[in-house]
Amino acid sequence: MNDRFLRACRRQPVDRTPLWIMRQAGRYLPEYRALRKDVDFLTVCKTPELAVEVSLQPLRRFPLDASIIFSDILLPLEALGCRMTFNPGPKLAEPIRTRAQVDALDARPAAEVVPYVAEAVSMLRRELDGKTPVIGFCGAPFTLAAYLVQGEGKEGFGAVKTMLYREPGTLERLLETLTAAMTDYLRLQIGAGAQAVQIFDSWAGLLAPAQYEPFALRWVRAILAGVRDLGVPVIYFVNGAPHLLEAAATSGADVLGICWRTPIDVAAARVGPSLALQGNLDPHALFADPTEVTRLATDVLDRMTGRAGHIMNLGHGILPETPIPSVEALVAAVHAHTGRDAAVAAQS
Amino acid sequence: MNDRFLRACRRQPVDRTPLWIMRQAGRYLPEYRALRKDVDFLTVCKTPELAVEVSLQPLRRFPLDASIIFSDILLPLEALGCRMTFNPGPKLAEPIRTRAQVDALDARPAAEVVPYVAEAVSMLRRELDGKTPVIGFCGAPFTLAAYLVQGEGKEGFGAVKTMLYREPGTLERLLETLTAAMTDYLRLQIGAGAQAVQIFDSWAGLLAPAQYEPFALRWVRAILAGVRDLGVPVIYFVNGAPHLLEAAATSGADVLGICWRTPIDVAAARVGPSLALQGNLDPHALFADPTEVTRLATDVLDRMTGRAGHIMNLGHGILPETPIPSVEALVAAVHAHTGRDAAVAAQS
Repeated sequence: MNDRFLRACRRQPVDRTPLWIMRQAGRYLPEYRALRKDVDFLTVCKTPELAVEVSLQPLRRFPLDASIIFSDILLPLEALGCRMTFNPGPKLAEPIRTRAQVDALDARPAAEVVPYVAEAVSMLRRELDGKTPVIGFCGAPFTLAAYLVQGEGKEGFGAVKTMLYREPGTLERLLETLTAAMTDYLRLQIGAGAQAVQIFDSWAGLLAPAQYEPFALRWVRAILAGVRDLGVPVIYFVNGAPHLLEAAATSGADVLGICWRTPIDVAAARVGPSLALQGNLDPHALFADPTEVTRLATDVLDRMTGRAGHIMNLGHGILPETPIPSVEALVAAVHAHTGRDAAVAAQS
Repeated sequence: MNDRFLRACRRQPVDRTPLWIMRQAGRYLPEYRALRKDVDFLTVCKTPELAVEVSLQPLRRFPLDASIIFSDILLPLEALGCRMTFNPGPKLAEPIRTRAQVDALDARPAAEVVPYVAEAVSMLRRELDGKTPVIGFCGAPFTLAAYLVQGEGKEGFGAVKTMLYREPGTLERLLETLTAAMTDYLRLQIGAGAQAVQIFDSWAGLLAPAQYEPFALRWVRAILAGVRDLGVPVIYFVNGAPHLLEAAATSGADVLGICWRTPIDVAAARVGPSLALQGNLDPHALFADPTEVTRLATDVLDRMTGRAGHIMNLGHGILPETPIPSVEALVAAVHAHTGRDAAVAAQS
């Protein structure tokens, strides 16, 4: 039983720093691209056997310390009645721009609308048979709202910021609806066997500090409160938010995911010792040659020497064009650190 | 003669905080949209009479304290032999991805390739007749490289980051070429009458702190050194860079432009008293109703009370859909502060 990821989430001593990679199941893997030749993205997500197969692919190549279920943060929005396509970016059938649209959103149980996610989590858990823990996930309410209001992924997500200033009450109502839906969705995944969950706040960095608490953090706290009784560690990843780190650290999550913009030791000093940190090698660093990847990955590990609770990861999702030898160099760099952190953690 | 903008750049006492607006000449103005019905963007930029007309449009509506010449940061790249179109975003005829392409870039004098920019600056200066100072501008080398390597504007500008990790020497050579070209280009504008210049580093925020010095700041410093003898104030605007503020403050520029992510008083405390600050109302704040715009603009002004050297502006360019009454409320909020800052500055 490899539990070093779960132990690191709880800041318990580990034999070495655990490693997983955001988007570790995906387009950088030839076997994923081969599978996707015949099946579209949504079909993979909605077919438990395929979602599990894709989730297992990176674990067959690399000795990673956690598995994350293959899905997309927007899929559970189908429980609100939202329809979408992926090509490859998401596109909503209809952007949510008005109070009437927000009030008309459904609130159906995730178990009815996206039962395949729970089935995939259960199946993945059985397949792994305790060898590697399973992570479930959801999008944070503000990040989901950014997509819903814009109608698609778009740099700057202007539409949600316009709503924030023009109709803050409408945005708050939308965030409330999303919070309830995501609490239900995480509970479904945990009930199905997820041993940890990650909340992705990919776009909270679009908020200034004064807006972050009322429009993002408050709702993440509510989700945390709504799953705490289930007893699994929660990771909160906030992207592009070097101006929000201190606040983000107060979400109540066990682990804070740090993007690549802030050196992780600087982030550690800013947020204090009371939570574990995850990250934060720049995904683009994997385009360097393997020797340089080793140096850069080791630098991240060295910055966290002596801190109880570090989960090695990238500072954002792995990119589709990433060369496999770079991932191998990253894995080797983490393994070369075996024992060092353990010795230090045992002392602290 | 309205010189409060130039005085604030030099942290001298002013009768009230000066105001100008990034992209103040542009699509939010009905008269600009009317002019553009018959003329495309590049033709406006390349025809001094039209560029001056468009530069003057916002000044006829609002009592702004500076005028900025209408152009685009990518235009002077024609001096390097780069060809591009705008629809409305820029698209390079060919992305620059290889060392051979970088080595083959021309280095023709801006005065030969973009003489229309110098003519427009001279004409604008004559038209304004000392009533409002004229600002020239250029893109910072890293930001220009982000466009050149990507070939277009694209969220994340992955191509330049890939080059940074894969071929740092090629990127450095490109930055060196761009630095020489931008030094020449700013000298041309200052020679033609620009009374201040702004260097836009719109994408430096894509760099982690350890990369910012070698791939962005170093080259901005070189441009500063190359125009210092001309004696005009220089504004350095770094967007999306709350993790880089302390470093950015060491560029040698007289004024640091702050994006909307960091409260401006927090930025002021972090960068110290030795340079003026410009900014930083969130452009999206102008979608609130005018009463709220007044409150939010006043909040920015209040945060800078007592600091010698504040130029009011947005924290990024004004958005095309911005309502005119919001701009009027912003102008009125600044004017309502008349005398307060002057009194404080005189004491300090």
